[in-house]
Amino acid sequence: MSAPVYLKDDKEGLKQFIDKYDVFLFDCDGVLWSGDHLFPGSVPTLEMLRKKNKQVVFVTNNSTKSRDEYRKKLESMGIPATAEEVFGSSYSASIYISRILPQSHPQLKKRNKVFVIGEKGIETELDSEGVPHIGGTDPAYRRDVTPEDYKLLAAGDPSVLDPDVGVVLVGLDFHFNYLKMCFAYHYIKRGAIFLATNMDSTLPSAGALFPGAGSMSAPLISMLGGQQPMAFGKPNQAMMDAIEGKFQFDRSRAVMVGDRTNTDIKFGLEGKLGGTLGVLTGVSTKQDFLEGDTRPAYYVDELGDLLEGA
Amino acid sequence: MSAPVYLKDDKEGLKQFIDKYDVFLFDCDGVLWSGDHLFPGSVPTLEMLRKKNKQVVFVTNNSTKSRDEYRKKLESMGIPATAEEVFGSSYSASIYISRILPQSHPQLKKRNKVFVIGEKGIETELDSEGVPHIGGTDPAYRRDVTPEDYKLLAAGDPSVLDPDVGVVLVGLDFHFNYLKMCFAYHYIKRGAIFLATNMDSTLPSAGALFPGAGSMSAPLISMLGGQQPMAFGKPNQAMMDAIEGKFQFDRSRAVMVGDRTNTDIKFGLEGKLGGTLGVLTGVSTKQDFLEGDTRPAYYVDELGDLLEGA
Repeated sequence: MSAPVYLKDDKEGLKQFIDKYDVFLFDCDGVLWSGDHLFPGSVPTLEMLRKKNKQVVFVTNNSTKSRDEYRKKLESMGIPATAEEVFGSSYSASIYISRILPQSHPQLKKRNKVFVIGEKGIETELDSEGVPHIGGTDPAYRRDVTPEDYKLLAAGDPSVLDPDVGVVLVGLDFHFNYLKMCFAYHYIKRGAIFLATNMDSTLPSAGALFPGAGSMSAPLISMLGGQQPMAFGKPNQAMMDAIEGKFQFDRSRAVMVGDRTNTDIKFGLEGKLGGTLGVLTGVSTKQDFLEGDTRPAYYVDELGDLLEGA
Repeated sequence: MSAPVYLKDDKEGLKQFIDKYDVFLFDCDGVLWSGDHLFPGSVPTLEMLRKKNKQVVFVTNNSTKSRDEYRKKLESMGIPATAEEVFGSSYSASIYISRILPQSHPQLKKRNKVFVIGEKGIETELDSEGVPHIGGTDPAYRRDVTPEDYKLLAAGDPSVLDPDVGVVLVGLDFHFNYLKMCFAYHYIKRGAIFLATNMDSTLPSAGALFPGAGSMSAPLISMLGGQQPMAFGKPNQAMMDAIEGKFQFDRSRAVMVGDRTNTDIKFGLEGKLGGTLGVLTGVSTKQDFLEGDTRPAYYVDELGDLLEGA
């Protein structure tokens, strides 16, 4: 594996880099901002790229926000964006369920209801694709398990286990509980397909880590004897396929920009994009970029360094 | 590995088998009963053994019941028992925390409070050993996470994170939630020792499976990058050590009786007991006993077959 090219202060190299791509896929936290702090070069860089008619896409593993809610978050950080430019793991999962899954699993043409573990963002995206769903934010699932539940679930009683459920989709759920685990497990054991928005085990917040979507899948994987869900967040290529399906771009003319080698850069490399750009304002270090197993093709100190190539 | 000896209808073999042991360790579900159904031979067999002055011990991975609650369960099934004869995973964990851990971890002499994920049974057993604890059934932890929680947990604020907590003990918790995961994770990241009553990922009930204690540890293991807790249920030998510490028996004169090769029989074999007896009234099959990787020394069709050797 060759060493990445350092582009900072290389005006000509930067210019050629920008010209090489039509589509710029951005990871957000660690690239455009960190926590509550917007990097000063982020807005001017995005403006510069848009002026050059580049397609900008914000790629996020966040499953709790719909595209429009994530657009609002971008705007609250001071970054103008449209919902169309946002690509989240819940949307990616929804597209997969509505458009791709019925081709490989004809039974889903009839039994296409989704049992959701997750928050409003997943429900909004399933709605946007016209996919019926239960669970999610329904308060009926925010309660203790009862002896009656055990009996009805064990018997597969249709008054509790909806026979139309053909998919279980697990994302980050701040109202995760024992009852939801029971339902998800019994639907999967009765044949539902096990999907996860993303497998990030942790969620960064306030400078520390908290349980992520992957921590909601972990008990199910354990109960199922190791069966893994199909997952849609970076670095999973199901997400790249969905992005390509939507924007219809030439992969050789697209670049993935990110701070983490094991998610962002891996996502771009495995997706066979024309390029990958690492930035040093997030998780991965210069040493990771230069000596790690997964290296970006190019790197800069911070995103704003691109402005020199404008 | 030699084939197990089939003792049914072998009056002399059964007599020798019974004479060989002073201590009979019993798994319960699948051996004495199945679900709500008591096997007819269970009570007479236990009576026969007690008349011969054998020490009978009921060994259970159930973490939600204290010994006395489990004794009540045994009696409700029609099996006379004393709390002293019951050995559960919560009690095993409590003994370990109070008597063994302070020797290897001197810091626990001062910071010995336990953050509990689990039900009343764990709290009762910790109380019986005089171990202070928080979490558990406290309704203060049965609520949604708030933005304020993130800030205080991230800052390690002593108003939320008790500085005396030196151990996190995870058992089956029907009130498992996001907030409890956050607390357990942050205590462990701040140096608390990660323990689990048992690692059974499922719990049989009403003829089906539901999330077990291991499913409560799974998200934490995932968040901690694979760090495993020390666990106390069968087949973990920490439980055998605790049983031996309490009953002070000669292992060569003890036998483990169970229906599952990968928990019960493994527990007896790895504990270097004098013998292991498999019964065919539970999970493992005759083929498992005869050809599996973990084979009992002896087997019978059902526990009541022992009566012929009386």
